[in-house]
Amino acid sequence: MDKTDKLNILPPDDFSLKCERIFALMSGAGIDTMVISSLVNKLYLTGRTFVGYIVVSSPRHEVRFFVRRPENYAGENVALIRKVEDIPAMLDFEPGYVAFEQDESAYSNVVRMAKAFGVTTFGNADGVLTASRAVKTPYEIEQINVCSHKLDYVYSLVPSLYRPGMSDIELQVEIERVTRLEGGLGIFRVGGEEMELNQGSVLAGANADTPSPYDFAMGGRGMDPSLPVGADGTVVRPGETVMVDTNGAFNAYMTDMTRTFAIGEISERARRAHELSIDILETLSIMARPGMEARMLYNRATDMVAEAGLSDYFMGHRRKAGFIGHGVGLVVNERPVIAPRSRDVLAEGNVIALEPKFVIPGTGAVGVENTYVLRADGLHTLTHAPQYITRLNK
Amino acid sequence: MDKTDKLNILPPDDFSLKCERIFALMSGAGIDTMVISSLVNKLYLTGRTFVGYIVVSSPRHEVRFFVRRPENYAGENVALIRKVEDIPAMLDFEPGYVAFEQDESAYSNVVRMAKAFGVTTFGNADGVLTASRAVKTPYEIEQINVCSHKLDYVYSLVPSLYRPGMSDIELQVEIERVTRLEGGLGIFRVGGEEMELNQGSVLAGANADTPSPYDFAMGGRGMDPSLPVGADGTVVRPGETVMVDTNGAFNAYMTDMTRTFAIGEISERARRAHELSIDILETLSIMARPGMEARMLYNRATDMVAEAGLSDYFMGHRRKAGFIGHGVGLVVNERPVIAPRSRDVLAEGNVIALEPKFVIPGTGAVGVENTYVLRADGLHTLTHAPQYITRLNK
Repeated sequence: MDKTDKLNILPPDDFSLKCERIFALMSGAGIDTMVISSLVNKLYLTGRTFVGYIVVSSPRHEVRFFVRRPENYAGENVALIRKVEDIPAMLDFEPGYVAFEQDESAYSNVVRMAKAFGVTTFGNADGVLTASRAVKTPYEIEQINVCSHKLDYVYSLVPSLYRPGMSDIELQVEIERVTRLEGGLGIFRVGGEEMELNQGSVLAGANADTPSPYDFAMGGRGMDPSLPVGADGTVVRPGETVMVDTNGAFNAYMTDMTRTFAIGEISERARRAHELSIDILETLSIMARPGMEARMLYNRATDMVAEAGLSDYFMGHRRKAGFIGHGVGLVVNERPVIAPRSRDVLAEGNVIALEPKFVIPGTGAVGVENTYVLRADGLHTLTHAPQYITRLNK
Repeated sequence: MDKTDKLNILPPDDFSLKCERIFALMSGAGIDTMVISSLVNKLYLTGRTFVGYIVVSSPRHEVRFFVRRPENYAGENVALIRKVEDIPAMLDFEPGYVAFEQDESAYSNVVRMAKAFGVTTFGNADGVLTASRAVKTPYEIEQINVCSHKLDYVYSLVPSLYRPGMSDIELQVEIERVTRLEGGLGIFRVGGEEMELNQGSVLAGANADTPSPYDFAMGGRGMDPSLPVGADGTVVRPGETVMVDTNGAFNAYMTDMTRTFAIGEISERARRAHELSIDILETLSIMARPGMEARMLYNRATDMVAEAGLSDYFMGHRRKAGFIGHGVGLVVNERPVIAPRSRDVLAEGNVIALEPKFVIPGTGAVGVENTYVLRADGLHTLTHAPQYITRLNK
């Protein structure tokens, strides 16, 4: 097979920036060699999905790529292997203290890699990788911005996709279709083993108050007990809302965004809660600063909600989510986490989705979610669709 | 919160059948207690997705459910917990030799569970679970059959979805839409860490010959380097084929099916290869028997291909897949594997997708994939769409 395709397709500046940051984090964590096997972290360091491993040496400031499939990749420090056991003999250095992705890789996979490297004590690479990934490079922000522009356009189409009598899932399918036609990849990457979702969630009326096992901001019964989240076939009725929280994964990255739509007039309380969501977003985006504890944003939001007397409805009613925001990037649940017990500290370059939402009995879910990038002077939104509640039955 | 929802929604007969089989497999493997934490295996034993654990005791013939979220589930042997560390004190028996899902759970998760159970030596539960899941119960076959009927209907719509000048991805988006409107869940569950896909793959013309890193039967460049498989925007041209291999996940289970479509007249070689694919399926389905080695099916298929002089094109051209079939159920890659070095032995109740396919340079991919259930007298197909190549430009 021709070796014609470059494995590492990241802009060289972007790759260097990520490497320097990772070498420093490894050094700080006492890790000499890091073996990367997860799909998402390989994507982070090459721009590609491939089957194989990346070995990072902190003392040597070196990154090596070991590819199993496909066989046509080439480039600096790229070697073909058949199995992980081939790697140690191909390294011309002693690995020292080695780390594997203990939170991302299966137990048997880590045990096999450790055996191949001849180590019985080893570190966890996930701390270094999640910390590095929490601070986006200019190239990463550009990629997320591409997703944001496309998702803005998708949201602008929602009113034209709605037909009277439609159920939540019927509307969701039409939103998915236009997302896919805009280049949406049709996948939704989530870190960890506990959460699944298709391309997004559309919640109509009372279904917003159905508890879900997942740790998403909102629940919903879902269409089947095997995927208990989101739309459940509810037909949208006058006086109720439809919350659209759909995924914008148009490249390796994604943007996260929620808008609320309504049929007819909704209750005063629901309108007030929606306005408060917009106020919270504005307050937090002005207040946020690099160096600030992430939980300060959470506390400010819950204070504002308590002052407005709306705590019973904030982040769910029958069941409440324990956060109001999260990092976004290659997966939907990156650092920092905006939650009361989060130990994350905000840093310039964080990309954060903030989603102060309410479930109002008799109306449904209201609120807005934007994806922001943190700069020295605060959070700048990357998502620009109008924030007001849009009527679907004009 | 009201405890109103039954956790275990499987028909009692189905649950008993699975339990008896698992107790016997555990006993054979010397495992006393099995701790299940993966989403898919919890689905297998309850019919639901939830956050928590299932503890199976082989000597006691007992299954206990420990739920973290949501809090409203109830039923026999169901208890609420806050964390895995709560479980051991809630058991009124000594766990003995414990096994965890070493291939499915993250390293750090298994280490945490082992610490909670106070064990340093432990077994792998995945052998027991994949063996049990390989032999479907009548209820599981019924569920897969529901998916098959719906997917048959989706395939019958494909010609009406095609418009001249359409690209592969445009056709795929319309297929996804009708699949979702029929109740498709919009997810594609794959075991392991290496493979991803949205709802399926549509391969047009020369793109069928683009190598992919994934271990699917066919490749394709994909729409982005982060998801390098399937449609890449190729416009279907006269004399070329469009292979549709889309997923039928309409409940916890799925069916797998491929049909080939063409624009205008395709080459003699391509037509011959497609006919051979149908012949192989017929031959293998008559020949398969419980107790037969899975690789016998692979060998028979490659013999037939060699006799026809089409080996260069079988299961890919530039890059070849190493199997012609696989078990299907809760995920797309279950046991048995129909491959030359497979050690799997066929058993009554196996649900197997067979996909003898060819990539013909100048034409594209041809071939058929059906999902079968193995009975005493051979493989019975669950997928019934016409197997001939359907012209898209009538």
